[in-house]
Amino acid sequence: MVEWPAAPRAVHSRPVDPAPANREAWAALSLRALPSTALVALLRAFGGPEMILAATRAQLSAVVPDAIVARMTAPLATDALTRAHAWLAEPGHHLIAWDDADYPQALLELGHAPPALYYVGRRELLNRPALAIVGSRNATPQGVDNARNFAHALSDAGLTIVSGLALGIDAAAHEGALAGAGSTLAVVGTGLDRVYPARHRDLAHRIAERGGLVSEFPPGTPPREKNFPRRNRLISGLAQGVLVVEAALGSGSLITARCAGEQGRDVFAIPGSIHSPLSKGCHKLIREGAKLVETAQHVLEELGMAVHLGPDTGGPVPDSPLLAALGNDPTDIDALVARTGGTADAVAAELTELEIAGIVARLAGGQWQRRN
Amino acid sequence: MVEWPAAPRAVHSRPVDPAPANREAWAALSLRALPSTALVALLRAFGGPEMILAATRAQLSAVVPDAIVARMTAPLATDALTRAHAWLAEPGHHLIAWDDADYPQALLELGHAPPALYYVGRRELLNRPALAIVGSRNATPQGVDNARNFAHALSDAGLTIVSGLALGIDAAAHEGALAGAGSTLAVVGTGLDRVYPARHRDLAHRIAERGGLVSEFPPGTPPREKNFPRRNRLISGLAQGVLVVEAALGSGSLITARCAGEQGRDVFAIPGSIHSPLSKGCHKLIREGAKLVETAQHVLEELGMAVHLGPDTGGPVPDSPLLAALGNDPTDIDALVARTGGTADAVAAELTELEIAGIVARLAGGQWQRRN
Repeated sequence: MVEWPAAPRAVHSRPVDPAPANREAWAALSLRALPSTALVALLRAFGGPEMILAATRAQLSAVVPDAIVARMTAPLATDALTRAHAWLAEPGHHLIAWDDADYPQALLELGHAPPALYYVGRRELLNRPALAIVGSRNATPQGVDNARNFAHALSDAGLTIVSGLALGIDAAAHEGALAGAGSTLAVVGTGLDRVYPARHRDLAHRIAERGGLVSEFPPGTPPREKNFPRRNRLISGLAQGVLVVEAALGSGSLITARCAGEQGRDVFAIPGSIHSPLSKGCHKLIREGAKLVETAQHVLEELGMAVHLGPDTGGPVPDSPLLAALGNDPTDIDALVARTGGTADAVAAELTELEIAGIVARLAGGQWQRRN
Repeated sequence: MVEWPAAPRAVHSRPVDPAPANREAWAALSLRALPSTALVALLRAFGGPEMILAATRAQLSAVVPDAIVARMTAPLATDALTRAHAWLAEPGHHLIAWDDADYPQALLELGHAPPALYYVGRRELLNRPALAIVGSRNATPQGVDNARNFAHALSDAGLTIVSGLALGIDAAAHEGALAGAGSTLAVVGTGLDRVYPARHRDLAHRIAERGGLVSEFPPGTPPREKNFPRRNRLISGLAQGVLVVEAALGSGSLITARCAGEQGRDVFAIPGSIHSPLSKGCHKLIREGAKLVETAQHVLEELGMAVHLGPDTGGPVPDSPLLAALGNDPTDIDALVARTGGTADAVAAELTELEIAGIVARLAGGQWQRRN
């Protein structure tokens, strides 16, 4: 019999590829939405999800309070379980439960992890270093650009970018991550048989192919206002930190940031004009302790993932048109060619000289940045 | 004999209106630019500035090291002292020395205060609560507006706004302060017989009439690169905190902010776009611990001077066009009339109702702000 721990932490003792019976039992159990503590007590008492489902009311009552027994034995909408089983029978559709080696360790460590995640995509992404990027659905064009550029650079640095598939910042974060060398996870608040918002159907398909789509809600779950805060908690829980790009006061992104703080994750925020309502949420976070970031490099530094820039030679920095074109942000050679009018070869040669002189650094993904 | 303290702290034991002889002796002594410790030792040994000047080389050698004696007995450019005396003979021109009751207590507490300040203006301003507002000479139009608006609101709240009479942010800070109920101090890096930059002649005259002009450099001192960091240290020293409005990396405003930190003053910075070079200095300060501020109210809160907003009724906040027009910044009735199209009477009546309901607060200077 499996030895279930007191908390769901580190329960990876079952086979990686569970039998369909086990998977369907987890699906049935997850429909009951039990508190973690009750579920752990039941797993310890009965040994596994199938055995819990087979237990009598009297056997259950010996382990958990009456309210939990009532919740477990109440009639379920029959189509809920049927629909979950039908969805799981499709190729590429997964249910990843606590006892699955691919269940995200980052969630297990929180102690309030959903017992099972519905999943489509590359299973290995669930246990890679990840950063959440979230923000307003009504972002400014500059906010959308910032989200895409940060996500691209951080994806290039090897991070999986987690977001919520919403309009605005979320979509730009997913797109930027897919354009980079890394990947992306979309955590949604509906069943995975639905795409919300509908106009993100194409984006969701690309994420399913090259990244992953995650939901704790069974197939058939429509968009419900009350489910989105739970979704936000999962976004921050899957990541080492949360970057808020643009957010109004009182917006859902601030809930995600608060979850991140409670979960011990880093919170990063991009500042903006004091006259922009969409920067006020970010400024509030910074005033409360979030780290102000201007570049992807700032995020990587805080996460302890900064590219080593080599020893500083300390010499005078030459004043060249290329350095002026480089500015202070990570930039790729194409952009430098466009800005300086030089050839790609000439730009690359000068960059290499500047790198040897310790003035610029080569970042992951072919980007360059001036050293400060 | 005056009992000179170990440090210049609290030396206010001499008459308020010093004799001209005393004043001229301080002027002569200040031309020697002695370290504070040496000057205190000399004052203790000889009793006052006239007696120090009358001491023989042998008497001086018994008190201070040879290097100090050499500095005190080296020939002075004769016109330096003559020019200082001539300037001081003009009506309204002051020399305010350590033993003057009007010498700024805030500077004395630092332990590195200049022995005497050349001064034109309202002497009482030197010991009032003050906030420095500094920033780039090449500010953006929005930066200039922000400087003026913060200075105006903080002047209305009773603060004296200290700045450096430079182009850009400094000038806007002085102008905003003069437009408010409070006043302003301009700390300059030249002699007070010069106005630098020359185009601020009119501004300097208005400050001399309604505020104060301060310099530690004797009349005749031209603008010299090396004197400006010393001037910056005086700006932060005279204030309880320094607000940096816009600043490039490596700019003088960051030196003022660093001085402020070393002097135990609060540092505040206004954020902006991550793509604006003039916000990068502010963002650097915030990343290093400066407080991000979006409104004058934020500054007042940090200084412990926030207007008391009364008990929060906790009730639901009504959704009115006036509240939408008010936004989250301090706003005056004229602006609300312009934004809502209502009459001033109607706006004032509704504001009073909202104030009674605990939803908005009346600030000093006729401004209103929504309570958060």
